[in-house]
Amino acid sequence: MKVHDIALVGAGRMGSLHARNIATSPRFRLCGVADHNAELAGELASELGVPVVSYEAILANPSIDAVVVASSTSSHLENVLLAVGSGKAVFCEKPLSLDADTLAGALADIERASRPVFIAFNRRFDPHLKDLKRQLDEGRIGALETIHIINHDPAAPRLDFIPRSGGLFKDFTIHDFDTASWLIGEEFVELFATGSCLVDPEIEALGDIDTAKLILRSAGNVLCVISNSRRTGYGYDQRVEAFGSQGALRVDNVTTTAVSRLGEEGTTSAPFPYSFAERYAEGYRAELDHFADVLEGRTMPATGPRDSLRALRLADAAERSLKGASPVNLEGVFGDA
Amino acid sequence: MKVHDIALVGAGRMGSLHARNIATSPRFRLCGVADHNAELAGELASELGVPVVSYEAILANPSIDAVVVASSTSSHLENVLLAVGSGKAVFCEKPLSLDADTLAGALADIERASRPVFIAFNRRFDPHLKDLKRQLDEGRIGALETIHIINHDPAAPRLDFIPRSGGLFKDFTIHDFDTASWLIGEEFVELFATGSCLVDPEIEALGDIDTAKLILRSAGNVLCVISNSRRTGYGYDQRVEAFGSQGALRVDNVTTTAVSRLGEEGTTSAPFPYSFAERYAEGYRAELDHFADVLEGRTMPATGPRDSLRALRLADAAERSLKGASPVNLEGVFGDA
Amino acid sequence: MKVHDIALVGAGRMGSLHARNIATSPRFRLCGVADHNAELAGELASELGVPVVSYEAILANPSIDAVVVASSTSSHLENVLLAVGSGKAVFCEKPLSLDADTLAGALADIERASRPVFIAFNRRFDPHLKDLKRQLDEGRIGALETIHIINHDPAAPRLDFIPRSGGLFKDFTIHDFDTASWLIGEEFVELFATGSCLVDPEIEALGDIDTAKLILRSAGNVLCVISNSRRTGYGYDQRVEAFGSQGALRVDNVTTTAVSRLGEEGTTSAPFPYSFAERYAEGYRAELDHFADVLEGRTMPATGPRDSLRALRLADAAERSLKGASPVNLEGVFGDA
Amino acid sequence: MKVHDIALVGAGRMGSLHARNIATSPRFRLCGVADHNAELAGELASELGVPVVSYEAILANPSIDAVVVASSTSSHLENVLLAVGSGKAVFCEKPLSLDADTLAGALADIERASRPVFIAFNRRFDPHLKDLKRQLDEGRIGALETIHIINHDPAAPRLDFIPRSGGLFKDFTIHDFDTASWLIGEEFVELFATGSCLVDPEIEALGDIDTAKLILRSAGNVLCVISNSRRTGYGYDQRVEAFGSQGALRVDNVTTTAVSRLGEEGTTSAPFPYSFAERYAEGYRAELDHFADVLEGRTMPATGPRDSLRALRLADAAERSLKGASPVNLEGVFGDA
Repeated sequence: MKVHDIALVGAGRMGSLHARNIATSPRFRLCGVADHNAELAGELASELGVPVVSYEAILANPSIDAVVVASSTSSHLENVLLAVGSGKAVFCEKPLSLDADTLAGALADIERASRPVFIAFNRRFDPHLKDLKRQLDEGRIGALETIHIINHDPAAPRLDFIPRSGGLFKDFTIHDFDTASWLIGEEFVELFATGSCLVDPEIEALGDIDTAKLILRSAGNVLCVISNSRRTGYGYDQRVEAFGSQGALRVDNVTTTAVSRLGEEGTTSAPFPYSFAERYAEGYRAELDHFADVLEGRTMPATGPRDSLRALRLADAAERSLKGASPVNLEGVFGDA
Repeated sequence: MKVHDIALVGAGRMGSLHARNIATSPRFRLCGVADHNAELAGELASELGVPVVSYEAILANPSIDAVVVASSTSSHLENVLLAVGSGKAVFCEKPLSLDADTLAGALADIERASRPVFIAFNRRFDPHLKDLKRQLDEGRIGALETIHIINHDPAAPRLDFIPRSGGLFKDFTIHDFDTASWLIGEEFVELFATGSCLVDPEIEALGDIDTAKLILRSAGNVLCVISNSRRTGYGYDQRVEAFGSQGALRVDNVTTTAVSRLGEEGTTSAPFPYSFAERYAEGYRAELDHFADVLEGRTMPATGPRDSLRALRLADAAERSLKGASPVNLEGVFGDA
Repeated sequence: MKVHDIALVGAGRMGSLHARNIATSPRFRLCGVADHNAELAGELASELGVPVVSYEAILANPSIDAVVVASSTSSHLENVLLAVGSGKAVFCEKPLSLDADTLAGALADIERASRPVFIAFNRRFDPHLKDLKRQLDEGRIGALETIHIINHDPAAPRLDFIPRSGGLFKDFTIHDFDTASWLIGEEFVELFATGSCLVDPEIEALGDIDTAKLILRSAGNVLCVISNSRRTGYGYDQRVEAFGSQGALRVDNVTTTAVSRLGEEGTTSAPFPYSFAERYAEGYRAELDHFADVLEGRTMPATGPRDSLRALRLADAAERSLKGASPVNLEGVFGDA
Repeated sequence: MKVHDIALVGAGRMGSLHARNIATSPRFRLCGVADHNAELAGELASELGVPVVSYEAILANPSIDAVVVASSTSSHLENVLLAVGSGKAVFCEKPLSLDADTLAGALADIERASRPVFIAFNRRFDPHLKDLKRQLDEGRIGALETIHIINHDPAAPRLDFIPRSGGLFKDFTIHDFDTASWLIGEEFVELFATGSCLVDPEIEALGDIDTAKLILRSAGNVLCVISNSRRTGYGYDQRVEAFGSQGALRVDNVTTTAVSRLGEEGTTSAPFPYSFAERYAEGYRAELDHFADVLEGRTMPATGPRDSLRALRLADAAERSLKGASPVNLEGVFGDA
């Protein structure tokens, strides 16, 4: 088994998650952790027994083959450009950028680079959603007609994250835009988005929403409904349902265990996973495996900068729809994506 | 137990369903069946051992206390007006009318009458949905934030029904408009509807759609998503889910039996009921029981002409939204409802 | 539709249940209620608007075609013999007797009578168990190998009932003996029973048990496990699972509604029905329908005195097994059944 | 993180499974693979990039701290004795022996050794069963009254395995004996076992059975029912249900994914895992983690030679019960366990 030397920039929540997976993967060796925040970098490096390094040192080190970019979202694109410029392969946490035009302008530079750039959208690597996709592609429900996505977070993020999140659509719905595009396999042509602030009025004061409903229409008239909420009271609600001409396929929530309790109030299943880290744990490991396959030339990246741009264009359109209280025509929007 | 003398006008599918329930209810005595189609009337009357009569004779018969109006939709309003004019209490199959302005104009006449007029929306009498409503009202999930309704028919109706159906929104979504209004307990202020013709191009040729997605917003910012389809491939899909500040409540599909089969393809439950008649069988019986309670002065009709008008106004708004490809502001729309 | 004149003896819990079903069945007319306890008889008769009569008067009335025997268990056999002697058809609540030899001795007299005698075992008329039986007979799981029956009561009966119940096996397990015989379609050849008193030590003081596990083997080596308990803490637990050479079929518990709640403790379904009257409500109505079919010559009784005797012989064998702490060989036991 | 040098004896199915888990565990370094079958050893060693070694060399190597014994069952005890004699800690695949008296005789030697001996019963490390055990211990269902275990294999093993398997009770039911003892936390005092050969008559010709039902009674009168089969037609059926004075807890089968399909035949879940290796994959990894904790002195082995002996005594008793067609009194049976 080939072992790939890889380094990490960004020692926050997502960086730590990827770093721990790298540490237990037989296909990678973690060579160092970089972060502007020396304390964060130090804690993670110490936990995993690897050195703290600067990003510049990573880029300059010819023995490091690939970089995981999990720094703050606003620095993703710059760090990716630096990495590809240094001949590194890149595993970048989504989203690549919060600004579609900037990203569009950088596409040529990224793609001119000789090394692969993988943008990690975790849903595409979830075994449950992959099984759904497989069955759709096998025609198990005939022609696809409708997709319903429920993506509800257990609890709102800290208020200080809201202003730099890019807003609900770019931070949260962006997953659903990518999932829907992937499952349907067609571009969307129309989008209507509406929302409310029901969870916390402070979010509204910050100019964001916490509850949203969207309807998208694809080129082939597949209709997609997306439901988002920043609060559930019962864990991370992650469901997808696909309706076709010959039946329907449903990805239900998973439960933390297969134990249920029979009591006078009814039969109670085990709770859902509370966080994305638990729910998509297997997906995050599969992302790494996929990236190893990419590095070994076995496959192309499942998702790249253009997928990130498409999702971003959809998020922009959702904001326009919300603000204009009107559907948005998407024709031409993906011209450069 | 008091027994109420009741007669039926309309011996079609819905009339037959109500007539058979009357025949087995200890609280009613079916006195006669009227229908312009003598053959239909004769078959039903003969099955139940009651006489075929004219609607005029029913209205003129002082011993008949109440009338079930289940004639063709276009004649509902006229038959109801005739009945209340003759001093009969009325059980009218939904919808009371397909034209909102006409109905609005007739409201005063209906309400001036001394006898109750009950418009039968079957969902409100379904034990599962009633349990959901009870739990919502008890605050089991805190403040209500979102409602999702799935209402998918197993198969499209005969094409000759489409032109006189009033269109998908008035014929089918009308149930969901009433269900949503009832569950939320607030008027809607905005509605967006979109749709496609995916099931049968003939339906499009007739100017209708067979697949629809709608988003409604209530005065209190509760968001409601409605999904409609004229085809499933797996029976009548009837689900409602309510999301609140402290959890969610879900009405799942019922199954025809509690038997499931464990096989190599997985565990297969029994199928769903195929038709509305099976799925809402208990609701139809409960409607009759409710009507008996109304006749005995124990309660007011749960749904009356104004509920029918509200649902109709929403259906009209959905048509405008679909045609204009734009959300519709509903303020003022219910002024006369 | 033919209407059968029928009368009831026994105005207790089961008698009342059957009487109310008769009152709402279009196929029967309830002609009177008899009970040694005049108060019980009077209340039920008054509720249903029928006269209180003596059992002698019922038997002497030539216009009454059939009798429902729902008196105390100890009088079932005598009342049945009187009824058939008077030319009445009989619908007898199970069990026909608590003493197998007495019942065996009376079989000839019962069967010599010209009128049908139906012993009502409610499980055979439950739509869920009937669906299981149908699928077994259709070979949906290949050759039947094993049956598991869970029959757990929500709460122990009143202690004063225990001494006249006949004991757990004759009062409660008797249903499972009949269900297992019916589903397998073969006689049993061996039985092992064990039990404990875990619910209430008073039951043990009265010489009975409240928890039992049994293993039966049929002539064709199908193994059947029966689990009984007098207490659940969560309603009436009624499950059957059949394992075959090509899969398994399961009858799960039904729930009171299709509503479930998603909360932080997990997803909670609606509770199970609490009592046999709720769980088997549809079965009790189907028993009556079946009896009407019997009276009209459309079918033979699905269960008769010999089925009651078979179940009773199995209950006797279970008592011997429990007391002897040893399996009991059943060969020859059904010689006269 | 401390890394433990460990070697493996036995490169068959179970040995390979453990070896692959060791290879991806950050807490162990696999130092070598031994097997009498040089080809098997070579393939596994080559796959994992470790040397083929002799068991003697492993025992003689002072730098190797621990040994995984996964050789053929008949050699488990001898290999464990050799290992503890050489000062190695031991991770031994169940069962330690097929002969209870031999094992009892060796107990003193094993326990005199200074190093820990862990006998790997996978159920105790399954996250679902551990959650059940935790909830039982927390009193979630009050006093435990009954346990039901379903342990059905998808398909019978190769016939040549039957003679050296030790028979169904020692090879297969042994898991359930350990699970039941663990969950109840009391010794059993009585056992009744019966069985049939329904899957394959060749198994009967070899003196074994393929279908079994057992009832065990604990010292505190908890009743335990075990159901075993060598065939399902639908994957590996692994369920446990515990009934208590205040409710019940159930471990259902897990499914391979959370995808279900709605079709005209009903709603079909994803299949169950087909093999023990899939179903208990997480348990096998947890066993290794537990063993690392044992090596680091953080805990005692969860299961040791005496647990293996207890399960073996129960399997012997089951054979006696089956052959004698009679319950077996277990008092005194565990005197030396």
